[in-house]
Amino acid sequence: MKKVVVIGSGNVAEAIAKAIVRTPEYVLTQIYARNHTEGPRLAAQLACPYAGEPKELAQADIYLICVSDRAIGPLSRSLDFGNGIVAHTAGSVELSALAPNIPHRAVLYPLQTFTKGRPVDFSSVPFFIEASDPSSLDTIGKLARSLSANVREASSKQRAIIHLAAVFANNFTNHMYSLAEQILHDADTPFDVLGPLIYETARKAVESGSPRAAQTGPAIRNDFQTKTKQRDLLTAHPELEKIYTNLSNSIWETSKKI
Amino acid sequence: MKKVVVIGSGNVAEAIAKAIVRTPEYVLTQIYARNHTEGPRLAAQLACPYAGEPKELAQADIYLICVSDRAIGPLSRSLDFGNGIVAHTAGSVELSALAPNIPHRAVLYPLQTFTKGRPVDFSSVPFFIEASDPSSLDTIGKLARSLSANVREASSKQRAIIHLAAVFANNFTNHMYSLAEQILHDADTPFDVLGPLIYETARKAVESGSPRAAQTGPAIRNDFQTKTKQRDLLTAHPELEKIYTNLSNSIWETSKKI
Repeated sequence: MKKVVVIGSGNVAEAIAKAIVRTPEYVLTQIYARNHTEGPRLAAQLACPYAGEPKELAQADIYLICVSDRAIGPLSRSLDFGNGIVAHTAGSVELSALAPNIPHRAVLYPLQTFTKGRPVDFSSVPFFIEASDPSSLDTIGKLARSLSANVREASSKQRAIIHLAAVFANNFTNHMYSLAEQILHDADTPFDVLGPLIYETARKAVESGSPRAAQTGPAIRNDFQTKTKQRDLLTAHPELEKIYTNLSNSIWETSKKI
Repeated sequence: MKKVVVIGSGNVAEAIAKAIVRTPEYVLTQIYARNHTEGPRLAAQLACPYAGEPKELAQADIYLICVSDRAIGPLSRSLDFGNGIVAHTAGSVELSALAPNIPHRAVLYPLQTFTKGRPVDFSSVPFFIEASDPSSLDTIGKLARSLSANVREASSKQRAIIHLAAVFANNFTNHMYSLAEQILHDADTPFDVLGPLIYETARKAVESGSPRAAQTGPAIRNDFQTKTKQRDLLTAHPELEKIYTNLSNSIWETSKKI
């Protein structure tokens, strides 16, 4: 059984640590976290030792750094990982952010959004891996495949692009839901009426394999009459009107590309 | 059993006609459609009579007009509905678009996106109803409740706002998926890697009841470093860079509103 230390106590640390505990091939040796409230809480939840000081870091085969993007570099320089493989889990941080004196460096990026208290089915989550050397790639690849059936190699550059696509599919999509929520206030209508539409829109895009081909609505028909009526409804929300116009134009322009 | 005629042969007509056929209280008397290819095809599929000429329109208790927004008014003026209730099914068309000499006018708007060949579970689809008189409202309300457990009254103004919210939650959300699809091309990565993220983003928003409160990512953290890196990745796509900047700003502004 390989020993894994999870570093961090946020949403990603929690999700990954819980997934490690469920694998037969890996043991969660320690939760290491500078947050002396969340760290011990997560460790207790997983019945695993906790450490909060550099000298207490346990020896392990794999260290998974699950901290904020900016903390990855400094943290990697502040700890002694011995001969263990050190992997961060961030989409938009390069492999080279890890201290170059660490002999085995890697990335294990799960393409998913993690929320405290929401269970995650890792088996279908795509993992993107990268490493400083073939043996580290092999080791981190085995760990990834024990968590998920969907594992791919990606360079730091590719991973940054994939993470950017995820910002559109997650943050910007959620913002569209959020703007819809604001608009519904004007009709005294609760957000939950949009539930079936939101689910069907997601399913249709994923099942068809091409959201571009699945587009419908006034913008792709270039339906001036409806677009004018809809912009008129937004005169009290100039920011929303601007977004409406920009995205309607973008849908139309996208539809014309070959 | 009340008699229903469905007018039209597009996606909405197909979905609603199929749902009517499944109810015990209503009989689909006829598909009336000017499209002499799609109309007979849909009627045959439902084992129901077809008509394509005004004089052939069958007598019925309820006529459901499922045609394009612009065709609703002219069509309502071109047919003799006798004493039947005439309802259109469009989100952004006013009740008053129906010819005023029709004695019983109504709206039956299902808040969902319909796609040829994709089955729809109507039982959870929100229906918004409106009518010219209490007896028509009662009749159309009964039909709506036989199709769905989620039926509400909404004025034409409210319905237009709800439909606009649906444009954000469906067309604009799908456009975010579509832009993510374009971005992934740059990393030689297929769109399907985003499936689990897209589903989790949808579930999280709907289950939490407030996507605004559920927002995450670089924009809401106002993380300049990541935003700059991500804009740099989009220099080859100036339109996408503009959308990235506008939506990031909008997420940040929205987060500051009380």
